[in-house]
Amino acid sequence: MKIICLQENLKTSLNIAQNVVSRNLTLPILNNVLLETENGRLKVSSTNLEIGINTWTSGKIEKTGAITCPAKTLTTFINSLPNKKIELEVKGDNLSIKCETFKASIKGLPADDFPLIPKLKERPIFSFKNNEIFKNDLAQVIGAAAASESRPEISGIFFSLDKEAVKIVGTDGFRLAEKTIRQNNGPASPLSFIVPQRTIQELIRILSEKGGQEMNMVLGSSQILFDMGDVQLISRLIDGQYPDYQQIIPKGFETKATVLKDEFTNNVRIASIFSSKVNDIQLTLKDSKIEFSAQDADLGENKSQLEAQIQGKGVQMSFNFRYLLDGLSNIPTKQVFVGLNAENSPAILKPVGDDSFLYVIMPIKTA
Amino acid sequence: MKIICLQENLKTSLNIAQNVVSRNLTLPILNNVLLETENGRLKVSSTNLEIGINTWTSGKIEKTGAITCPAKTLTTFINSLPNKKIELEVKGDNLSIKCETFKASIKGLPADDFPLIPKLKERPIFSFKNNEIFKNDLAQVIGAAAASESRPEISGIFFSLDKEAVKIVGTDGFRLAEKTIRQNNGPASPLSFIVPQRTIQELIRILSEKGGQEMNMVLGSSQILFDMGDVQLISRLIDGQYPDYQQIIPKGFETKATVLKDEFTNNVRIASIFSSKVNDIQLTLKDSKIEFSAQDADLGENKSQLEAQIQGKGVQMSFNFRYLLDGLSNIPTKQVFVGLNAENSPAILKPVGDDSFLYVIMPIKTA
Repeated sequence: MKIICLQENLKTSLNIAQNVVSRNLTLPILNNVLLETENGRLKVSSTNLEIGINTWTSGKIEKTGAITCPAKTLTTFINSLPNKKIELEVKGDNLSIKCETFKASIKGLPADDFPLIPKLKERPIFSFKNNEIFKNDLAQVIGAAAASESRPEISGIFFSLDKEAVKIVGTDGFRLAEKTIRQNNGPASPLSFIVPQRTIQELIRILSEKGGQEMNMVLGSSQILFDMGDVQLISRLIDGQYPDYQQIIPKGFETKATVLKDEFTNNVRIASIFSSKVNDIQLTLKDSKIEFSAQDADLGENKSQLEAQIQGKGVQMSFNFRYLLDGLSNIPTKQVFVGLNAENSPAILKPVGDDSFLYVIMPIKTA
Repeated sequence: MKIICLQENLKTSLNIAQNVVSRNLTLPILNNVLLETENGRLKVSSTNLEIGINTWTSGKIEKTGAITCPAKTLTTFINSLPNKKIELEVKGDNLSIKCETFKASIKGLPADDFPLIPKLKERPIFSFKNNEIFKNDLAQVIGAAAASESRPEISGIFFSLDKEAVKIVGTDGFRLAEKTIRQNNGPASPLSFIVPQRTIQELIRILSEKGGQEMNMVLGSSQILFDMGDVQLISRLIDGQYPDYQQIIPKGFETKATVLKDEFTNNVRIASIFSSKVNDIQLTLKDSKIEFSAQDADLGENKSQLEAQIQGKGVQMSFNFRYLLDGLSNIPTKQVFVGLNAENSPAILKPVGDDSFLYVIMPIKTA
């Protein structure tokens, strides 16, 4: 293999690919990225056996071939070089690199030993026209998914598609975030699947580096492909039944409030300084005011008030402040709607004037 | 105690004081800051028994008194409040705080139980006219001091003063940084002492928040006071004999080079990607060029060249790249002077056209 390409292009490819590479002691080749010539371009691939990434970059192919190299060494070296022409050449077991006065020889492993990244040949089930918007949609729900894998089905992000919309959902059993993306090019018959949280993290990261393009989603029997043209992300799906979450979303509210989001966030944060070990703060909605309070046996206590438009009956409820803050941070509008029912029933946060996002939060049970 | 002051002022005082407070389980009052009224101002103090900080802020004293409060809770709460008037009042064992609609009551401990921060009554040994410059001087040498305390005397920064200058020095036995501050107001008879690295870190941090003022240095028998007017930092000194470092500074060089600092740094960093476990890279000076190379049995090897003005005989030496990078990062000029002698002798890095800073680095012994 012998290729001449621009540092900038190779750098972008490597930075996208190298993130899924993790230190693997039992299978050292997983520490490597695969470089190979393919149809006149350089293909860079990586995998951790759960997620695979392929990226393609242009260059002058002087000789076809392939090799694998330690991802970290190669990426750090290429990132450090000036943005000039780079010559990559396989010499025996090594990859030789030249760029201006810089020369390196990196020990490689044979390309044939690199695990195969599956190819999905099915037709796309959906096309996102604008990656930038899709990235923001994913970011609104990813934080709500369960961090632990003790219940694998909620450790991922749930996708459900029909003709008119894609819904993406994250929940950990204590709060839930749902985003609805309305587009008319969905599949004729509804379908749904669960994508690992880590895959969505990678997807958000890739979309941050390569925004603006179209993306096709291809569904295999147990895998999914996010195809961005010159970047592909392939991941296993999570096997399991996602909870029937629609039933916990309250349809009506005994108490409704509309309040400025930044001020609400600030008061929650200040109250949280005095929250006890279970992270609880109290909200009291009454007479055009929300009162925020918290108390801890060791630290002391605090209270503050914020004006709000309140309809319905007065109510006091306790919430985990972290869940409140997570939800608020994903509300993009100036004002937030808060919907409450009797104590111990789930509450809702919603952007005012934007029906595409919904955040459900379970209160902390009071005696 | 009852005081009304501005949030901004109290915030500055607390942020300066709270950094030395560490989680202390055996003596819980060390987690607290002491608030007390003193001559019409509010004094905020903290100590970890090695370093003490006093800061003063103005306010309207309605009732004199004192209390101690958990530093973290108080600081986080005050930092979060709007920049408005704050009312602080001791009520029983608690500190009550009011600011607009925000109210808190923080559990305190009696001021009488707070450890005394020693007062140094001696006359100043030195005055720095410009804190900003002094801060940069300290930053140039602090990184060279030993991180471990296995040899306590080199875990600190060495100060030596005479009539014309103050020298400050850090070394860990592998490299040494010396800064000379020329001022004519030094003590008549030379004196020297060792200040703990942590104290210098605190001093740099305080000077970053409160630049531009004059500072007086007061020396006690086993303590030192850095007096910045409304902020005082008091620290123990390190007991011990600082090594006679002057003898290891080479006076002449068999090989001298002048080279662009940023390019030199960049080439060292790139070579370091292929350095072995002992962090060694090789420099070869010959024929108007410096060659940088490194090799690791597992990774591979690399090489690069940089043009330089070289006088004297050609030489090859190995250095720990981290020590090279540390030294280079403290050279403020565009060009750096490199002075070398035979293998295994200390080398020197110096800013070109600035005799106040000197960095000595031991090479890695080659077979």
